[in-house]
Amino acid sequence: MPRKRPPVFYPALLVIDMQNGFCTPGGSYEEYGGRIGADLDAYRQIIPNIARVIAACRELRIPIFYTQQVREASGIDLFTRLHRIIPERRAEFLRIPACVRGTWDAEILDEIKPAKGDHIVVKRRDSAFQDTELDLWLRSIYVDTIICMGVDTAICVENTLTDAFNRGYDVILVEDATASSWPEIGRATVMKVGGSYGWVLKTDRLIELLHSCKRGRGAFRFPVQFLSQPITGKG
Amino acid sequence: MPRKRPPVFYPALLVIDMQNGFCTPGGSYEEYGGRIGADLDAYRQIIPNIARVIAACRELRIPIFYTQQVREASGIDLFTRLHRIIPERRAEFLRIPACVRGTWDAEILDEIKPAKGDHIVVKRRDSAFQDTELDLWLRSIYVDTIICMGVDTAICVENTLTDAFNRGYDVILVEDATASSWPEIGRATVMKVGGSYGWVLKTDRLIELLHSCKRGRGAFRFPVQFLSQPITGKG
Amino acid sequence: MPRKRPPVFYPALLVIDMQNGFCTPGGSYEEYGGRIGADLDAYRQIIPNIARVIAACRELRIPIFYTQQVREASGIDLFTRLHRIIPERRAEFLRIPACVRGTWDAEILDEIKPAKGDHIVVKRRDSAFQDTELDLWLRSIYVDTIICMGVDTAICVENTLTDAFNRGYDVILVEDATASSWPEIGRATVMKVGGSYGWVLKTDRLIELLHSCKRGRGAFRFPVQFLSQPITGKG
Amino acid sequence: MPRKRPPVFYPALLVIDMQNGFCTPGGSYEEYGGRIGADLDAYRQIIPNIARVIAACRELRIPIFYTQQVREASGIDLFTRLHRIIPERRAEFLRIPACVRGTWDAEILDEIKPAKGDHIVVKRRDSAFQDTELDLWLRSIYVDTIICMGVDTAICVENTLTDAFNRGYDVILVEDATASSWPEIGRATVMKVGGSYGWVLKTDRLIELLHSCKRGRGAFRFPVQFLSQPITGKG
Repeated sequence: MPRKRPPVFYPALLVIDMQNGFCTPGGSYEEYGGRIGADLDAYRQIIPNIARVIAACRELRIPIFYTQQVREASGIDLFTRLHRIIPERRAEFLRIPACVRGTWDAEILDEIKPAKGDHIVVKRRDSAFQDTELDLWLRSIYVDTIICMGVDTAICVENTLTDAFNRGYDVILVEDATASSWPEIGRATVMKVGGSYGWVLKTDRLIELLHSCKRGRGAFRFPVQFLSQPITGKG
Repeated sequence: MPRKRPPVFYPALLVIDMQNGFCTPGGSYEEYGGRIGADLDAYRQIIPNIARVIAACRELRIPIFYTQQVREASGIDLFTRLHRIIPERRAEFLRIPACVRGTWDAEILDEIKPAKGDHIVVKRRDSAFQDTELDLWLRSIYVDTIICMGVDTAICVENTLTDAFNRGYDVILVEDATASSWPEIGRATVMKVGGSYGWVLKTDRLIELLHSCKRGRGAFRFPVQFLSQPITGKG
Repeated sequence: MPRKRPPVFYPALLVIDMQNGFCTPGGSYEEYGGRIGADLDAYRQIIPNIARVIAACRELRIPIFYTQQVREASGIDLFTRLHRIIPERRAEFLRIPACVRGTWDAEILDEIKPAKGDHIVVKRRDSAFQDTELDLWLRSIYVDTIICMGVDTAICVENTLTDAFNRGYDVILVEDATASSWPEIGRATVMKVGGSYGWVLKTDRLIELLHSCKRGRGAFRFPVQFLSQPITGKG
Repeated sequence: MPRKRPPVFYPALLVIDMQNGFCTPGGSYEEYGGRIGADLDAYRQIIPNIARVIAACRELRIPIFYTQQVREASGIDLFTRLHRIIPERRAEFLRIPACVRGTWDAEILDEIKPAKGDHIVVKRRDSAFQDTELDLWLRSIYVDTIICMGVDTAICVENTLTDAFNRGYDVILVEDATASSWPEIGRATVMKVGGSYGWVLKTDRLIELLHSCKRGRGAFRFPVQFLSQPITGKG
């Protein structure tokens, strides 16, 4: 086994589930009255940082993938079809599908909407890798490092990020560009990622790092000593 | 779509990574000196409860699956081959493989060792479903509900449990038969599971429930009202 | 392991890749001039049988899934991005994407188009199970048997059908409702399926069998002795 | 998407299911009396070519992976547990498990047995990629090209090879180092691979090509014009 991973990184940006249904007043989660599901205020606070990271990646020509969590209008993929133990926070799915494919509810927020050249990954469960073409698309453009942000930190972001790690990608979580409806659980995700999965960086530090480490043809050469530096999310 | 999930459950028990390497003095994690990796004291405290759940499942003829986290002696599956961002807690893998396939280190603890008729699932990443035959084996004996326990709550137990849920299984976490080396993060996993993935039950309650809900031919009829009862792990 | 598979079957129908791009004059494959890719005449000859099977399944309330093979307009999923050994028949992908998502080219043929209540599975590689939600959808409505037809017998139909078998589904191939651009290879697929994967039935026989074996609530009780009867595709 | 696949190849060799149970007198398939299952004579004829390819790959330091098709002694993975439509050639599994894990029956043939540094992949269904760590191991040593040989051409070899292609690997089939118990179907596989999946090469040509195209650090630079040369398995 003579071949070793070279010291360069080929990153892609994943923007997880920043959709009207979860994040916009008038979306299906708000209509559930805040009793279950998403904390819109928490989710909306990260929009500026998400916009900044997206802008930096566009400038640096880092490929950008948005995920869209959808349900079919037919209801075939409602949790109630598969599960009889329906946890409290998923209970919205007991009644009607949210973020139905093809509706405004499922669309990415207008403030951070995909540009020409960005990619959309339609997903139906927590991880952006489950039952999607994401892995093959990432392979096809030589991505080996995932920069992850969006909502909810503790559910879809964490599942996507651990899934990426377990498939062999290096992972980076943007701590102030992800939000959870359950702050205590979201904080634990950040600690866990920092200790067991990858790097936890704030928006400012990430953008600075990307700019300073850029090399030719999509490669980034992150400093090796960075590995042992104190990091935000040590848990 | 006329068919509905019937009100019966076909459970299986998953015992995650209760191996010498992680849980026994003299195992490879202890040798790392407690600086990184596993908290053996925390892991060993749950052995009695794990033994009780296993005994109850044997008595009630619930199928039992043990997972074994392994590495190859060749080092082909060391994290250092795939990753250049190596998180702190995984750093043991920088040097030598732990729980090498075929060694004492990889074996299940003697106190709770598999009996004839139990099944072993060899795994290499966090989730017991990744790159294993577990899903097909569960299908082949009509299992639709996973009872999950073992170590580490926040890593392999949580990844296995969320993976089970996302593949359509109902899930139950045995709160006092799982342990984490990082208590705060482990507690967040318990809260998250209770709120977003399934039931969180203590050993006593689980055993009582299994006995009282047993029906013929491997089926269990859990009370529907149980769904809305207060549960331990609400987060 | 006391539970045994009951003697009833819950079938679903899969209609593979019957799209304008592959099967309609003016579609992208015809434009390649017949030198590579699809034999439109062969593909179009099975449309009447496909229509009959679809009609029978609608009448008998058997769930129907259409697959749509697509490419992104961006070209991210062109074979030339992943492969440097590009086989002759896939050479069309060297230049421009065919059956681009959202275009007429990617749509199901008008003669057999999906009705309300049917399901669409968007796919990008040979098997309808790869990187799609098909498996989870089938589980969610208790399907355990796949009736397969469409094009090309030797590529997407065979890959989907062997994938279904290997995931634990029983499989049935409708011999005169599938077609190949390479007749000799297509015939070998039929022989192989009959000998190693499942049943090979003609349209008449399948429709007759479905009608005579229908029971309540989506179940079919196929005769046990059928297993040992002479079958068409014995190879 | 500026990054393009470089013109070098990093191959690995896959040796599929060359086990006593399928290929050795006294193995479980011979005991079924030749009525079902494997043609031992056909399978044994390719042993010399397989040995030559293995020797060449060892010399050239190409990584070698052997697959082992196994069943559990418990019978949990017998086809009869999952399937009620049991095809003729799989009927051996109706009664007792063949190639049980840990037995002589499951072992690789002594004539071509794995050497130190080779890898073993335990599999249970047709494709060596299904429910195994193969993909992750290949990624971890930068393999992008699969050289495939072994038995049966039409079942496990073909499924593994199409699965490799569909996951993004380039594929090469060694025509005279693979055999089928059903010659007509096996020939169709060779034609199909040559036309739709990759290269079909004979042992002599493959070994010559590997020697002449070897570059440093595991890379091979196959001639581009080779793509359009006449190939054996054109179908």
